[in-house]
Amino acid sequence: MDWIEVVTTIVLDVTAGEGDGREALQAAALASLELDLDLCLVGDETDITEQLATLAHDAERLRVIHAPDRVDSNVSARVAIGKAPRSSIAVGLDTVARTRDTAFVSAGHAGAIVLEATQRLTPIAGVKRAALAAVYPTLKLRGERQDPFALLLDVGATVDCSDDELVAFAVMGSAYARRISVNPHPRVALLSNGTNAEVAPPPINLAHRRLAEGDFDFEYIGCIRADQITRGDADVIVSDGYTGDVVIRTLEGVASTAHALLRQASDRFRWRLGVSMLGRGIERLRELIDWENYGGAPLLGFQSPVIVTQSNSHRRAFFNAIRLAAKVERTGAIAEVTDCVERLQSTRGRAHD
Amino acid sequence: MDWIEVVTTIVLDVTAGEGDGREALQAAALASLELDLDLCLVGDETDITEQLATLAHDAERLRVIHAPDRVDSNVSARVAIGKAPRSSIAVGLDTVARTRDTAFVSAGHAGAIVLEATQRLTPIAGVKRAALAAVYPTLKLRGERQDPFALLLDVGATVDCSDDELVAFAVMGSAYARRISVNPHPRVALLSNGTNAEVAPPPINLAHRRLAEGDFDFEYIGCIRADQITRGDADVIVSDGYTGDVVIRTLEGVASTAHALLRQASDRFRWRLGVSMLGRGIERLRELIDWENYGGAPLLGFQSPVIVTQSNSHRRAFFNAIRLAAKVERTGAIAEVTDCVERLQSTRGRAHD
Repeated sequence: MDWIEVVTTIVLDVTAGEGDGREALQAAALASLELDLDLCLVGDETDITEQLATLAHDAERLRVIHAPDRVDSNVSARVAIGKAPRSSIAVGLDTVARTRDTAFVSAGHAGAIVLEATQRLTPIAGVKRAALAAVYPTLKLRGERQDPFALLLDVGATVDCSDDELVAFAVMGSAYARRISVNPHPRVALLSNGTNAEVAPPPINLAHRRLAEGDFDFEYIGCIRADQITRGDADVIVSDGYTGDVVIRTLEGVASTAHALLRQASDRFRWRLGVSMLGRGIERLRELIDWENYGGAPLLGFQSPVIVTQSNSHRRAFFNAIRLAAKVERTGAIAEVTDCVERLQSTRGRAHD
Repeated sequence: MDWIEVVTTIVLDVTAGEGDGREALQAAALASLELDLDLCLVGDETDITEQLATLAHDAERLRVIHAPDRVDSNVSARVAIGKAPRSSIAVGLDTVARTRDTAFVSAGHAGAIVLEATQRLTPIAGVKRAALAAVYPTLKLRGERQDPFALLLDVGATVDCSDDELVAFAVMGSAYARRISVNPHPRVALLSNGTNAEVAPPPINLAHRRLAEGDFDFEYIGCIRADQITRGDADVIVSDGYTGDVVIRTLEGVASTAHALLRQASDRFRWRLGVSMLGRGIERLRELIDWENYGGAPLLGFQSPVIVTQSNSHRRAFFNAIRLAAKVERTGAIAEVTDCVERLQSTRGRAHD
């Protein structure tokens, strides 16, 4: 059985992100009524209590932890966490670190979350650098659950990556996909500037050789170009954090452009009639570009699940992130990642004998 | 007056690219009838002559130059050009190098074109590394011509860039945009992983400081994230060739995914009716993602115009590339690039005094 019958607690960062916390609280209130989990709300206690009073919720399932500081999203991660020692990110991660069966969800400064997690959470043995894995939409469905999305990692936790890191990310990403998408044998690719690894930058070329020669629980399909990302040829795509950030933000930019154009169309009276006549194509396009469906990006490399959502997330995005965090906790995805990294370590050990 | 009244000759590579050359020849035949320019067709002479006989064309405007070798697109650029010394790319670029008022158009192996151009064309004084500039669609219109696209460079000519190269690309890209989009004062940005240059990789951070402090004929607006690309905040975005390749191919991938979805919709009888009711939004989306509208990517850094089109280009893409090449020639865009690079050099000279 995959799902373990214990009550999962989601530690939800209410303060970080662009809004005033209202969207996160609305999601939490709804989750307390609809999902089988407890929530720990981290932020300004007075403010949270006041706002909660106006929302339908199950008080038995909600607890509030006070965090007075707010992380400034406009400065570098190091400066931001230095100025906010008791931020919702710091307090939330501390809560996760000392409690079993908990997961952290935040829409905060991604760099600050990575730095704070590195300082406060227990790393998975053998993982030197964390990876933030973004979920992105593709046309192909994958795994037993027919998920319409794939995984790209890293998208910003580790800007500059060696071949060691790229191989570790392949192992972590495929382990995560195995549990979350119920995809026993994920197809893994390295993102590059061509399918010929010889022309790739040195770390990618080295990682390519190790992935091609190694014995892994996934199918390594080689280097791919970025136009193959959305086609969905790979279930897991591995990249350094700089390039991954550029890819995921390019996709976001296109999605918001397409949204704006579709909104222009829907401003017209004829829109509703038109769309109902278009069948599934346009509807599918709208679903694919709607990031709030996907629930956020797991930060891999720690013994506790951490889900980072977009800073401008709305209620639905927070709700989906809470659900995803519970799923990561209950499916044992982190244990799977840990096992796979351990196997990689022992293979490396043998290779060095 | 911007347009100089001489007959421009476009040297068109018929052989390179994915197809059998038929699409390029159809475009050339049409261009000979509709555009005020001469064409030099490079490829297998017998084959070109036979195929031309079946197409309506103006024989006065077409000339054929034989090139027996074919560049293999599946190997690295260096290997490919080594195996094909008299390819359509090599012969075509030689023709351009020794003739005034000519421009080269090819759908061939971009890496091979860059390498052959470096060996056969005269570089612009002061330009050490070439940049391939891709045109990409944005929502905003720009310049006097209200062009719905902006420029991203480099997208693959120079994979690893120093700050020197990034600054030179900013100067070349803005000079090109000034003439082609009739945009006297283009807004230029550096692509990065955030708007704070402090967190950018070192070459970007250094280039940022020089662009912010220097005195240029363009408005430097700082570092931008990749989601700002399609929003159109910048007219010219500067990047190293590796990251630029990833961006442009990500955009291609999304475009082809969206195309596939729109095609699914159009397979239904109801589509036509639906689309006509949607007004401009969807139509605009379709136009924006249709790469064949844009005519190809200029390769900047040489004294002759070179336009690289996608390897799977159809007739319309070739026709637009021919037209763009003539426009680059006639508007004096290369002279503008040369002047601006010269000014950059003299500023650097003074700075070092």
